[in-house]
Amino acid sequence: MDMTNITELNILAQERYSQLKSKKLSINMARGRPSTKQLDLSSALLTLPWSCENQDTDYRNYGGKRCTPEAQQLMASIMECEPDEVLVEGSSSLALMHDNLVFSFLKGNPDSERPWQQEESIAFLCPVPGYDFHFQMCESYGIRMIPITLNDDGPDMAEVERQVASDSSIKGIWCVPKYSNPTGCTYSADVVRRLASMPTAAKDFRIIWDNAYAIHAINDEQDNLISILDECRQAGYSNRPLVFSSTSKITFPGAGLAAMASSPTNLAWFFDQTSKRSIQPDRLNQLRHTQLFPDREALKHHMQQHRALIRPRFEIVESTLTSILGPSKLASWTQPKGGYFISLYVPSGCARRTIQLAHDAGVELTPAGAAFPYGQDPQDSHIRIAPTSIDLDEIKLASEVLAYAAIIAAGESITGG
Amino acid sequence: MDMTNITELNILAQERYSQLKSKKLSINMARGRPSTKQLDLSSALLTLPWSCENQDTDYRNYGGKRCTPEAQQLMASIMECEPDEVLVEGSSSLALMHDNLVFSFLKGNPDSERPWQQEESIAFLCPVPGYDFHFQMCESYGIRMIPITLNDDGPDMAEVERQVASDSSIKGIWCVPKYSNPTGCTYSADVVRRLASMPTAAKDFRIIWDNAYAIHAINDEQDNLISILDECRQAGYSNRPLVFSSTSKITFPGAGLAAMASSPTNLAWFFDQTSKRSIQPDRLNQLRHTQLFPDREALKHHMQQHRALIRPRFEIVESTLTSILGPSKLASWTQPKGGYFISLYVPSGCARRTIQLAHDAGVELTPAGAAFPYGQDPQDSHIRIAPTSIDLDEIKLASEVLAYAAIIAAGESITGG
Repeated sequence: MDMTNITELNILAQERYSQLKSKKLSINMARGRPSTKQLDLSSALLTLPWSCENQDTDYRNYGGKRCTPEAQQLMASIMECEPDEVLVEGSSSLALMHDNLVFSFLKGNPDSERPWQQEESIAFLCPVPGYDFHFQMCESYGIRMIPITLNDDGPDMAEVERQVASDSSIKGIWCVPKYSNPTGCTYSADVVRRLASMPTAAKDFRIIWDNAYAIHAINDEQDNLISILDECRQAGYSNRPLVFSSTSKITFPGAGLAAMASSPTNLAWFFDQTSKRSIQPDRLNQLRHTQLFPDREALKHHMQQHRALIRPRFEIVESTLTSILGPSKLASWTQPKGGYFISLYVPSGCARRTIQLAHDAGVELTPAGAAFPYGQDPQDSHIRIAPTSIDLDEIKLASEVLAYAAIIAAGESITGG
Repeated sequence: MDMTNITELNILAQERYSQLKSKKLSINMARGRPSTKQLDLSSALLTLPWSCENQDTDYRNYGGKRCTPEAQQLMASIMECEPDEVLVEGSSSLALMHDNLVFSFLKGNPDSERPWQQEESIAFLCPVPGYDFHFQMCESYGIRMIPITLNDDGPDMAEVERQVASDSSIKGIWCVPKYSNPTGCTYSADVVRRLASMPTAAKDFRIIWDNAYAIHAINDEQDNLISILDECRQAGYSNRPLVFSSTSKITFPGAGLAAMASSPTNLAWFFDQTSKRSIQPDRLNQLRHTQLFPDREALKHHMQQHRALIRPRFEIVESTLTSILGPSKLASWTQPKGGYFISLYVPSGCARRTIQLAHDAGVELTPAGAAFPYGQDPQDSHIRIAPTSIDLDEIKLASEVLAYAAIIAAGESITGG
């Protein structure tokens, strides 16, 4: 790049950054939270279910099935599978993933030769950038994390296939397959088929399919994700996928419904373990949710309203980054068609400094490296943008701060700053 | 006992049993569930919390403290401790116990030299008769169970002290210290103090203090249970107790609030682990509950209404057993002042047969042996009665069936039946 241009750009950026800093902003773009207006879409939940009288089972008490058939139906429609493939349990899909790991460590999964705790080493493939909570869970339990490049169509499958074929300590892969956290990419049909059919050295290999944004399009046109359950079944590996979703980004984060879908064998195994953990999940919350969404149309209408709130927020980030960073080609960023995040790639070695500069100007971003195992971005290049929860004018300001901070950081990097 | 009397009694019992059997009853006294009228006491929860507007934190979203200060206050008032000693999380105290075990296996507790999974053997003391779900959890994770006699004032402390002093593989003891499941006994101050102060070979020994019936008196006069937290602190073992309770028998089973109270060290340890399991628990349900119980008076009044429904049920069991079994002294039973259960002791070798006979006459009881590790009652003598959920006339009939079944089983046992 032309040094004169960079210098000019930098002078302008410094000036605009100072102006923005003087506004004493306090804007948080660190986490993928719905805005208040999004939450208001589900406010009927606060007074539901009114009564339990028309139910065959009294969901106020113990007894009957572990989850309600209606909740299975609802989550199956979100997860695009059959109701009897779904277990609805608690309000956190992360907790269901956690418990699958824990049960595997202590007991082994249905295909394990022994409990994972008896293995010398356990590793998981981690497409990067990825979701920090997945990686923190691995770190907490000493699961070795192997980073895999996440491309626009999913993880680098040649590398995935090479690794799992030869290393039996690799017991799983973390996937956010649709509107991925944080790049927003959706796995292609080819990638899903290769994940489903690849030979693995570990017989008890599992795909953790965290489909958190299954119906969370920003545009009217949805990305198409083919069914990992179907593909694995066809490939003869029906126990391989553990599929998760929740209503955390549909109704209330942390107070919605979480679900797991898998093979009958895996579901029976999980059911057996979790039935010893608790007598029954909160089925009244299941009832609340199925009364709020009595059919697919109600859910579809609800997601359209979310979309109307989210789309302009993504558009402002996009247009602001384009206008400030576009001409210099100094940075690149993703243009997701759904989900809650945008990935911004600044020049190598500049992410941490950019985030610091943004922080100094009152804009909080996800910590540098958070989207990578052990919090280490080897390029120090990736920045996650979470624009959903804040007001439109704040997004504009925060995106400007971020863009100018990126230019300043890049300038410092070139001049030895 | 006089054989003539037994024979006479048996003939009468056979006759009455046949009459009752011909009624084709279908009565379930197997589990400790609240009755529908008890559930109705909490029906306001079905339309709460109405709105979240007057809260500092928007509990519909992620962010802020993990549990609401109001819920900590509520659970602390139930658990008789300070709010900052309490973590409110999920709807199942059993799940909190489970996760404490799991985290101990995978990471070790704050006083462990190594994760429990690396120990050759882990054992827990199990006062018997006890709660089947505790024992099933131990069995599932290969925790060796050592039965300890449960007396009217708590576990046989001489035996407890002897065992824990010499065996470092004993990492804990299960206690339901107030209105115990299933005998209804409450631990005496002396027993609590000895549990708190006894030397243990395992430095990371834990008392699982499942105080499920903390405020569940049947009579107006409460049993007095002294604080295990205070006693352990005074004895220099502040990390020893893990105290649990829930509103499962206050509001809705499985859809209420669960809580854990312990030392700052243990709470920080648990918090750190569980924060990787989920982002946040369902705080809207916490809000619902604290709006239902804005103060101690509201809670007290609520429990008085429960009491009015439960007491006559216990009284009918007591009077029926007394009138049928009393004269022969063939069996004995507990007379709890609170909780959900009565323990009936039939002659050795007769519990399984009694329960079978009751089943044949349409009365379902907890399976024989369920209150013992591995489902094995060495005397085959204990039967758990759970009278809360059924109607008064059904309790009378079911108690009659049970009493006559006990006489018939005893008769068969004497004659080689």
